[in-house]
Amino acid sequence: MAQDENMFGRIECNGELYEGHIEIKGKSLFVEGKELPLDEISYLPPVNPSKIICIGANYMDHIREMNHEVPKNPVIFLKPPSAVIPHEGEILLPKTSRRVDYEGELALVISKKGKDIQKDEWEEYVMGFMCFNDVTARDLQQEDGQWTRAKSFDTFAPMGPFIVDVDPFNLEIITKVNEKVRQQSNTSNLIFHVPELIEFISHIMTLEKGDVISTGTPSGVGPLNKGDVVEVMIEKIGTLRNYVR
Amino acid sequence: MAQDENMFGRIECNGELYEGHIEIKGKSLFVEGKELPLDEISYLPPVNPSKIICIGANYMDHIREMNHEVPKNPVIFLKPPSAVIPHEGEILLPKTSRRVDYEGELALVISKKGKDIQKDEWEEYVMGFMCFNDVTARDLQQEDGQWTRAKSFDTFAPMGPFIVDVDPFNLEIITKVNEKVRQQSNTSNLIFHVPELIEFISHIMTLEKGDVISTGTPSGVGPLNKGDVVEVMIEKIGTLRNYVR
Repeated sequence: MAQDENMFGRIECNGELYEGHIEIKGKSLFVEGKELPLDEISYLPPVNPSKIICIGANYMDHIREMNHEVPKNPVIFLKPPSAVIPHEGEILLPKTSRRVDYEGELALVISKKGKDIQKDEWEEYVMGFMCFNDVTARDLQQEDGQWTRAKSFDTFAPMGPFIVDVDPFNLEIITKVNEKVRQQSNTSNLIFHVPELIEFISHIMTLEKGDVISTGTPSGVGPLNKGDVVEVMIEKIGTLRNYVR
Repeated sequence: MAQDENMFGRIECNGELYEGHIEIKGKSLFVEGKELPLDEISYLPPVNPSKIICIGANYMDHIREMNHEVPKNPVIFLKPPSAVIPHEGEILLPKTSRRVDYEGELALVISKKGKDIQKDEWEEYVMGFMCFNDVTARDLQQEDGQWTRAKSFDTFAPMGPFIVDVDPFNLEIITKVNEKVRQQSNTSNLIFHVPELIEFISHIMTLEKGDVISTGTPSGVGPLNKGDVVEVMIEKIGTLRNYVR
């Protein structure tokens, strides 16, 4: 868990919702200074996005493993808000798929409404970063051609645990399944980075406060099975942990 | 405009928002009985969907004209809420596309939250139907492979004018550009119809009240140019008219 950065989150504790600046000290979590015992809280998604825009094929090593072509422009797709789950939420394997994969990713959260944003203005529009798992039914992705069904099942958009204000350009990113490292890369390997993505996407669609852009996954994608624990860990941001059932 | 059906809509008039049962008589529009002069109103989108789920390749004639294969399952994709415009709204042609097409469609609006809905329960979950134009940047659709960018530009989801409670299985559907008929079919020609679509989609994602499912377009798709007036007309539902600039 990141300790030194400026973190924003949403927490439920004994039926109450808490939202704001987060600090963790010992066995307590503080939201806007209010102390809550860590063993009595539930994590909530840090935002309720009106849209989640994801990028395919944005790390060169992942492009090679998927036999994709290197894109001229970012390849975008949408995940529905109904797919969002928080840190420690459960990923449900759908009956219609025989292979569901993790895809650990760096995601950003939009801070204010914007359209036609220039890349050098990106910082004005970003509230911070979080871990994201672009869970994907790999067999259905291949069957459909279009990726939407494969990526839109309920619980297929774990995000969190918090939104952290960091510099996104050189961060170690690791995905572990049952504590074994499955993906390991650095955000410096992104083909299209945060400023370019915000410029590209905001020339297509108006971005709203709370919208999420997830930047794509490195190589090493692989299957999840019932009982697995999957963790997306990003340096200075934290660890997003989810349980598969 | 449909006159005899149970219609629901949202209207702005002199800075006030009106929402509810709609009737049109002479030069007046009545919202929940409140009389408004037709020449002083603006139409609003009848709903603010949390998601818009669209179906590709769902009329046999359109599959042939696009050289798509007949799908085993409905092919779904999402349009973002930021793309929605109402009846009489303007479709903006993006600079990055050289060919933007109309796609006239029958859309339904979800009446209550649901997951894993069975096809014979469909009526419980449908508030009614409206016209939808799945505006598509055809060149970008072909360039990307994935359809999301091509279909997600602001103004690319015209819907309305109202939500009408009708039987959806045998309705004439026509798209006109500058009063010339460009698409003409009947909803009886849909490959996957409303009950099957609701069952299929709700087994993937939880449907929320106000969500929109658009059922796909028949053959005859073609380009829109600056100054065009495009109309999607569905029997018993009404006419969705939009201006291209």
